[in-house]
Amino acid sequence: MRLVTFRNSQGTPEPGVATGEQIIGLKEAGFASMLEILAQGADCLQVIQRWIASPPASSIYQAASVKLMAPVPRPPKIFCVGLNYRDHAEESNMPIPDRPTIFSKFANTVIGPGDPIVLPKISSKPDYEAEFAFVIGPGGKHIPQQDWQKHVFGYMNLNDVSARDIQLATSQWLMGKTFDTFAPMGPYLVTADEIPDPHQLSIKLIIRNQEVGTEEVLQDSNTRNLIFKLPYLVEYLSSVCTLEPGDVITTGTPGGVGFARKPPRFLRPGDEVTVAVEGLGELTNPVVAEA
Amino acid sequence: MRLVTFRNSQGTPEPGVATGEQIIGLKEAGFASMLEILAQGADCLQVIQRWIASPPASSIYQAASVKLMAPVPRPPKIFCVGLNYRDHAEESNMPIPDRPTIFSKFANTVIGPGDPIVLPKISSKPDYEAEFAFVIGPGGKHIPQQDWQKHVFGYMNLNDVSARDIQLATSQWLMGKTFDTFAPMGPYLVTADEIPDPHQLSIKLIIRNQEVGTEEVLQDSNTRNLIFKLPYLVEYLSSVCTLEPGDVITTGTPGGVGFARKPPRFLRPGDEVTVAVEGLGELTNPVVAEA
Repeated sequence: MRLVTFRNSQGTPEPGVATGEQIIGLKEAGFASMLEILAQGADCLQVIQRWIASPPASSIYQAASVKLMAPVPRPPKIFCVGLNYRDHAEESNMPIPDRPTIFSKFANTVIGPGDPIVLPKISSKPDYEAEFAFVIGPGGKHIPQQDWQKHVFGYMNLNDVSARDIQLATSQWLMGKTFDTFAPMGPYLVTADEIPDPHQLSIKLIIRNQEVGTEEVLQDSNTRNLIFKLPYLVEYLSSVCTLEPGDVITTGTPGGVGFARKPPRFLRPGDEVTVAVEGLGELTNPVVAEA
Repeated sequence: MRLVTFRNSQGTPEPGVATGEQIIGLKEAGFASMLEILAQGADCLQVIQRWIASPPASSIYQAASVKLMAPVPRPPKIFCVGLNYRDHAEESNMPIPDRPTIFSKFANTVIGPGDPIVLPKISSKPDYEAEFAFVIGPGGKHIPQQDWQKHVFGYMNLNDVSARDIQLATSQWLMGKTFDTFAPMGPYLVTADEIPDPHQLSIKLIIRNQEVGTEEVLQDSNTRNLIFKLPYLVEYLSSVCTLEPGDVITTGTPGGVGFARKPPRFLRPGDEVTVAVEGLGELTNPVVAEA
């Protein structure tokens, strides 16, 4: 299933299911938010399946007419894995790591499909990073690798937007990663049952610019190149933190980021950036300058 | 005023005011949580003053009989400033920085006074860091330095507990900083009007161990030694992120941390760690091993 969060006819956020031309709202089915669904885990998918088979007219929206938000508008935590594709570690002149490098973004970064990425006035090196993210359903601590599927509810595209000059101005990357609007995600949270093997998905980043009439494929890799895979990440992160429903773990970006290109290709106002992981739809965001 | 969050007679969290022997609950006064008070900012302090002058009996608790929680049990963001005291930068062999190094902890780290700091099984170098923290009231973006007092609601003690081996295993410190229980804070959120100059406060860390009968003063400095001061931090952080009510900014630790001592002094089960910033009371937490 392709779950979404959208603005309903009252203008408030509501979880729903995207079924081709329609969005079926889930509030009347008893789910007030995506976090409630995630807390219940895969057990509630049967209830949702029954609901969307014959929903009341008041829960049916035409997809073209609703505004999608990020599937998880306010994740309790956003963990980012650095240097998790062999090619990106190499282009960054970093050795292949023996344990994952983990950093974070705060929830102020989260935006949905179509929302603008705002380029900060104080950065001259704003960059893109196509990423494959997974979302925690039922939480836990000290989760063994073999239990990872009990805790991973689903998958989504994520763009780990990064201001390289700010990121690298000190030893800690946080400030360059956590500007408002720097974590576009979605459009869907695709439930785990739809993706037989998360380590076998193509991942691409494309920038289109209608003003100059260009289309550039800047990243093109596959999640099979992940150094640290999902079962390991769930075990490692949960050995430190209690994982909670709605926690987002974004698994890192492949080669081809803007600052490693010759010449560099940073984000520019007028760009439209698309992240497309196989099976997860396309996440497209326009790029604008800060006012 | 010394604001607290405590477990009330129903066992649920409630904001209150500590007045010597008593805690006066604020739920009946219309404040459901500390975040609601912070969102209103200093404007609501007059209302609270009137309430505590003649509270109903149902809102009066004996301080000795209630369990205090962290004043802000679930901060939207926890920003930590690294290397912000001259002496700590020197003992860490780091140059005096020209801009602040910012990293984060997630909200899973938050505990209150008296709650145990749990030493992780996977670390052999758990360390303390006495810190002076401030809490955002009304939020904002691009806040100019001169407006900092409109946004800083109050102050509290914070212990930035750190697993040094995990912190330094990769370039990014997050994992070593964000173990469950690694951000004790409180006991009070002292409103800003009670602290005429936040850059003129003694700060101490003391470890007592009743089993071995020792009392060690391990950090003893003053916030006048802060390299980056509050007005600058408010401006800098808000140039990146929208600040929100309840955001915690902890300003860094002075010299004397455990890993820089010869021999090192790491946390041990049976220790009781106290952070005491002048005017903010004492934050004491027992140390236990992970089960």
